[in-house]
Amino acid sequence: MPKTNMIMKLFSKILLTAAMSAVLHPLTAQQNLDFSGKPSIVSPEVHANNTVTFRLEAPEAKEVRLTGDWLPSEGWTPGSLKMARDSNGLWTLTTEPLRSDLLMYNFLIDSVRITDPNNVYQIRDVSSVFSIFMTNGEQSSLYRVNDVPHGTVSRTWYDAKQLGRTRRMTVYTPPGYETSNAPYPVLYLLHGVGGDEEAWISLGRTSQILDNLIAQGKAKPMIVVMTNGHTSNDAAPGESSKGLYKPVMFTPDVGSGDMEASFRDVIDFVDRTYRTRADKASRAIAGLSMGGSHTLFISANLPNTFDYIGLFSAAYRLDSSKTNPPAVYDDLDKKLKIQKDNGYKLYWIGMGKTDFLYRTAVEYRRKFDTLGMKYTYRESEGGHTWSNWRLYLSEFVPQLFQ
Amino acid sequence: MPKTNMIMKLFSKILLTAAMSAVLHPLTAQQNLDFSGKPSIVSPEVHANNTVTFRLEAPEAKEVRLTGDWLPSEGWTPGSLKMARDSNGLWTLTTEPLRSDLLMYNFLIDSVRITDPNNVYQIRDVSSVFSIFMTNGEQSSLYRVNDVPHGTVSRTWYDAKQLGRTRRMTVYTPPGYETSNAPYPVLYLLHGVGGDEEAWISLGRTSQILDNLIAQGKAKPMIVVMTNGHTSNDAAPGESSKGLYKPVMFTPDVGSGDMEASFRDVIDFVDRTYRTRADKASRAIAGLSMGGSHTLFISANLPNTFDYIGLFSAAYRLDSSKTNPPAVYDDLDKKLKIQKDNGYKLYWIGMGKTDFLYRTAVEYRRKFDTLGMKYTYRESEGGHTWSNWRLYLSEFVPQLFQ
Repeated sequence: MPKTNMIMKLFSKILLTAAMSAVLHPLTAQQNLDFSGKPSIVSPEVHANNTVTFRLEAPEAKEVRLTGDWLPSEGWTPGSLKMARDSNGLWTLTTEPLRSDLLMYNFLIDSVRITDPNNVYQIRDVSSVFSIFMTNGEQSSLYRVNDVPHGTVSRTWYDAKQLGRTRRMTVYTPPGYETSNAPYPVLYLLHGVGGDEEAWISLGRTSQILDNLIAQGKAKPMIVVMTNGHTSNDAAPGESSKGLYKPVMFTPDVGSGDMEASFRDVIDFVDRTYRTRADKASRAIAGLSMGGSHTLFISANLPNTFDYIGLFSAAYRLDSSKTNPPAVYDDLDKKLKIQKDNGYKLYWIGMGKTDFLYRTAVEYRRKFDTLGMKYTYRESEGGHTWSNWRLYLSEFVPQLFQ
Repeated sequence: MPKTNMIMKLFSKILLTAAMSAVLHPLTAQQNLDFSGKPSIVSPEVHANNTVTFRLEAPEAKEVRLTGDWLPSEGWTPGSLKMARDSNGLWTLTTEPLRSDLLMYNFLIDSVRITDPNNVYQIRDVSSVFSIFMTNGEQSSLYRVNDVPHGTVSRTWYDAKQLGRTRRMTVYTPPGYETSNAPYPVLYLLHGVGGDEEAWISLGRTSQILDNLIAQGKAKPMIVVMTNGHTSNDAAPGESSKGLYKPVMFTPDVGSGDMEASFRDVIDFVDRTYRTRADKASRAIAGLSMGGSHTLFISANLPNTFDYIGLFSAAYRLDSSKTNPPAVYDDLDKKLKIQKDNGYKLYWIGMGKTDFLYRTAVEYRRKFDTLGMKYTYRESEGGHTWSNWRLYLSEFVPQLFQ
């Protein structure tokens, strides 16, 4: 078949030529391949000492700035730094050494906020998309995919009976789950007001943290269930029949009590569908911010269900202005008293020193003290950030089911 | 607790204020919330007649262009259209009515290619990230998340024994899998040279196509297994211990025969781990471009394993220049003869009229004709595009396991 050979040799040649030119732009109308081969720009480049160089080619721009979640902000305005232009129109900036973490950034190109065109790794947070990278070091090594056994991450739909719908959740099952017959304990992990069932996996690096802690022998193999705490949505933006809408942070369900009131359906589905140890000693629940409030009320309303409770930068009540609060919010002190009398192994509270909810934690810790409820309090640097929530998760998980 | 109440009322008030301002920028160093509340720009806006309006606020830009995969390209250079600036610096463009599909685009802001900052829905294709949207109509309704029962999508790691490593795959199990005891047939679905185990889920909309076709009674419930065809990678970029590197299209494994030679390990893992019907009548395999070549050789080398074979815009041999080709490429005609004599139910070939591999398909169709192998040939408009591969999948799947 001479023609086939000729064509395939040409194709091979194109492949090799293209391979040498590293950067490819596949957006063409007729073909999904592009061999234009622009020279490759590396951005960001993380150096051994955790300084990081950012690069953007923008010859026509008047000003390019870098904004990142490690830069001090002024109020709600993110901090930014001016980048320097070379004679070819390449803008660069090298940072000071950064902390060991997963970090987020954008470029401001003449004040238009964009993701880094040379970095394909991005994470959505509510209605914004950020470029991400990881620095070196001990803490971020927990966030990396390392050469260790990996769990399975599933997106599945459960029957939320009390809400009359099916809803999406993300489930991590540990390495060995598929080949073992053993039942596993379960951690229920709840997101904040800006999140959904993707948040703990994408921004939270939950599957990496669990894989790594389990491989190091520091955590027991466990199932982690990540729900969607916005009961007015069935799933994360783009993953429900609402289509590709523009996400907003505050949905009408916030403070409605619906998530707390319907949580039993989540537990029932998980115990029915996965090989769980369906008892109090094998259940943990933790949440951040709004999810911390959910955690507090869910565990108090199901007061003999969880032996491990974690509040990460927790809000207390998201809407206390209602004159007729939902029943899940009624008689909290009585419910906590019952929870205390039933007993639990760990009530863990994490809070950042500069968190805008810091005073809230002072108040609910005072409540717990008054009621004689034991808890472990962990105060970290920083505020209401994913940096802290990943840190809290990595400290909380080793204490579970021991 | 007056202080808590005060703080929480203030928080409630902030929440309400912020809720009214729809767009939030959570990137701040100290807090993960931002209440700056810039006015919301909607982009893209898909109108009822499938015209689409794009908007970008860029007061300082000299020129903003739109590039999209529906625009005619010149050679490998994507087509683009100039957008119009209003007096406030808002650039807009409204398209002609577009086809019913999932479509990809970028903005060129003074020649810097960016994703749309007002659209959080993006898909990576090799080393580029594109903003996406969906138009209305019959074909794209298969790509939407509709109010139908949903399958589960899992990312899991299998023991690739012949390659001596564990590798990542994506598995779709149909609605009802968790609650039934029935075994299911399996479709193995392979990606092209630019893809990985995420490609058929993200660009291919496989879970939506399957959910919708099953709900309409047009497809049998089946498991779909999406592998990573680059044997020099264990997983998609960012999902392996290689870290957050810049992806390239052409890895050293292309044409090595390793994927074809080691595919038995994939089947063994799937039959061991999932509730499959582990017989030829219940197995299908299909692939696009490089994955089409993989499909041809895998099914010919395991000639009594698949009753359904699909070649979507298939390449033939990715590297026929080697003087000592791997054994999986040896004696193809003999192997095809055995496959033919063993029998199969469907050999389906899809190809676009303007595909750069069009002549290749002419050649392997001629080979099949010479060998007396029956096949169904489907010629579509257009070329080597995801638009065609989604179309082919939606036409191929209803013919399986009937």
